[in-house]
Amino acid sequence: MRIDIGNCMDTVASPGISSESLDSLAIQVSEIHMDIGPKITNNTFGYAALNPPSPEEMKQLFTISDSFFNFSNVLTIGIGGSALGSKTLSTALGISGHHVLDNVDPFANLDVLNNLDLSDTVVNVVSLSGTTIETISNFLIVRDIMEKQNIDWTSQTFVTTASKGYLSDLSDKYSLPIVPFPESIPGRFSALSTVSLAPLLILGGDVEEIIKGARSGLESLSRSLHNSPGYAYGALTTELFNLGITSNSIMPYSERLETFTEWFAQLWSESLGKDGTGQIPLRAMGATDQHSQLQLYRAGKRNLMVTFLDVIDHKTKLTIPPPDFNTFDYLSNLNMDDLLRTELKTTEASLADVGCPSVKIELTEIDSFQLGQLLHGCMASCIISAELQGINGFDQPAVEWGKTALKDILTGKSSSESSSTQNKNSHWIEK
Amino acid sequence: MRIDIGNCMDTVASPGISSESLDSLAIQVSEIHMDIGPKITNNTFGYAALNPPSPEEMKQLFTISDSFFNFSNVLTIGIGGSALGSKTLSTALGISGHHVLDNVDPFANLDVLNNLDLSDTVVNVVSLSGTTIETISNFLIVRDIMEKQNIDWTSQTFVTTASKGYLSDLSDKYSLPIVPFPESIPGRFSALSTVSLAPLLILGGDVEEIIKGARSGLESLSRSLHNSPGYAYGALTTELFNLGITSNSIMPYSERLETFTEWFAQLWSESLGKDGTGQIPLRAMGATDQHSQLQLYRAGKRNLMVTFLDVIDHKTKLTIPPPDFNTFDYLSNLNMDDLLRTELKTTEASLADVGCPSVKIELTEIDSFQLGQLLHGCMASCIISAELQGINGFDQPAVEWGKTALKDILTGKSSSESSSTQNKNSHWIEK
Repeated sequence: MRIDIGNCMDTVASPGISSESLDSLAIQVSEIHMDIGPKITNNTFGYAALNPPSPEEMKQLFTISDSFFNFSNVLTIGIGGSALGSKTLSTALGISGHHVLDNVDPFANLDVLNNLDLSDTVVNVVSLSGTTIETISNFLIVRDIMEKQNIDWTSQTFVTTASKGYLSDLSDKYSLPIVPFPESIPGRFSALSTVSLAPLLILGGDVEEIIKGARSGLESLSRSLHNSPGYAYGALTTELFNLGITSNSIMPYSERLETFTEWFAQLWSESLGKDGTGQIPLRAMGATDQHSQLQLYRAGKRNLMVTFLDVIDHKTKLTIPPPDFNTFDYLSNLNMDDLLRTELKTTEASLADVGCPSVKIELTEIDSFQLGQLLHGCMASCIISAELQGINGFDQPAVEWGKTALKDILTGKSSSESSSTQNKNSHWIEK
Repeated sequence: MRIDIGNCMDTVASPGISSESLDSLAIQVSEIHMDIGPKITNNTFGYAALNPPSPEEMKQLFTISDSFFNFSNVLTIGIGGSALGSKTLSTALGISGHHVLDNVDPFANLDVLNNLDLSDTVVNVVSLSGTTIETISNFLIVRDIMEKQNIDWTSQTFVTTASKGYLSDLSDKYSLPIVPFPESIPGRFSALSTVSLAPLLILGGDVEEIIKGARSGLESLSRSLHNSPGYAYGALTTELFNLGITSNSIMPYSERLETFTEWFAQLWSESLGKDGTGQIPLRAMGATDQHSQLQLYRAGKRNLMVTFLDVIDHKTKLTIPPPDFNTFDYLSNLNMDDLLRTELKTTEASLADVGCPSVKIELTEIDSFQLGQLLHGCMASCIISAELQGINGFDQPAVEWGKTALKDILTGKSSSESSSTQNKNSHWIEK
């Protein structure tokens, strides 16, 4: 993995990063690294996410995955950070058999469950707190269906949680294996921890290579921004944000990275969206969104940057056969890989042409190693960005209000939150 | 369909719409309606999109769809507005058998094609110009596969295009049926035209009800903003944009509306993103993104609004069975519909609590009629917003630069665009 920052420098972009700013950022990154390096090493809360799982954690994981080796599917029940890490990895790597319930949409959930052979499925219930309403609800529904199908759910279910709570009690009652949710890692930073690796391991994913990629990311973190793609990306996006680039469109040229954009959006939003600040992550997809978003990116307000993800080799060759009429002779025998990469190049140039800043992340291919590097680099970026802005990147205080309101309504408790939901301000417009 | 604007008024939100602004907007909408009403009636370019297809167009469509009545699948090959309309409708209505190739990603495309019985599939090639590189490329690949499988592709392919171009020539050569792309409707406004309805009709969708919904939307357009949900939404989002609300997160509480958010994002971006202006559409999903985006929405810069889509009845009952421990007794026998709607209510209140503006669009259920209303209302919103801002909502000049660059590179033509793509500004960061 490497990143090209040329198109966000002020020689191209406006606003863009000046060479003086880059020097200043390099000094700040160096100082921050001196501060957080030991925090990473000491597994301090949050920073611990940059460490690959320990050999002990992996040993425990292997024991659990071995016991489920003969199942074809894993159903992960979680929401937010409890689901997005494993979903991102399995989607990007094309690992089939990983299914996810990460919403409480009855139509969508039944669609998943009706198309899944639950007798051949390991159920993976994930909640850091062990008390997430959506996750407990979905688990209860899945268990009920399994019981009705005479499936011994207790023999094919494991939970991923911290030490206390409903899931832990459930594990005690039914002797379900537990993958401990590392208590020093916030949910959205758990993509390279045992939390996300468990389903992949059961389904035969190359977890060792993902961890090697994460370790390579860890080794790339240094006092020099110029040798640390993760730090560089975080520092530059923060500086661009300070220059008025309030949105960042994540635009991979690979459908396999679609879930990655959701994961990135969560990481960015929950970590950096606080204290009246925070760059807004957008999700886009190349080349499709050239026919959807590009008009706005090029011609709208200059308050947006684009992060391209360029995959050199898609490892699937599709060659375009000759067309009927000579107007399209130039398509004949073109590789679709090459077409897709040329589309990226032209879009990148199209934005540079009008001074819209962009950064390009390049992967030679989407394999386990580079995916480990990519996710690690994004987490390091996010952490350095929070440090540069002096905000706590590891909490999410603003989601508590809604959680309290939800619980209070469901339990019938009167509180300022629950009574606020009786919207007295409604102003309906209808014909 | 009705919309609640209470939470974007300045009695709740900051910035928010004052009652004086609302009065002023109502007057402007009234004047604009007097101006564009005749343009709609006369099928003037762009405005024509607000008219349902004519009986003649529908007759032609029925003839084509009848000839394909015995196929189980339709494969739509298009990109941008040529694919998003039909994809939005079929996904929302749960119409199975509609498959879409709307990218030139070799991995993703082969995944679709390898899981599709092409002998039982109608191929629908859609391009307004008939010269879209991605669409022609995908068509050539699909045809090649069909020929290799000894399928007479000519007997199960139709094209949707304007009068001239590659697809029209192809139709002449192989006697393929043509659905005429209405020349007065820009691609991204074609969701309720024959372009998008064709695949649904073949697959048994209730096209008549969609059209009835569109007609109901048309009838709701009046001089009074207070009786026109579409105009009201467009006017209010424009006013909020002028007050600094530069982003608009579209957040349905239904997975079936996920593609709708892509469609909306295209409509908004390509129509309004020009002349240095344009509100940035974000795509979100409730309840999942409460665990992902909500932190940013509530605690970030006050430059964002949320558009909720509330579905009262999901028409799929899932009841949560009793939990093991009494901490979660309150979930017992709860309908998932009710849980999902309560989540929406609490999130809406959570944003109102901090003055973040939101609008709620309410559907009693996701059926053909209300979907027709919804898409019609969004297009009317977009048109009124462009009028209020004095911009041309129907062109997309900024995408041409990249298209020219792409074609010039592929044909080996030297031009200022193609030479710009030889990025001389690269500045790589790697370990």
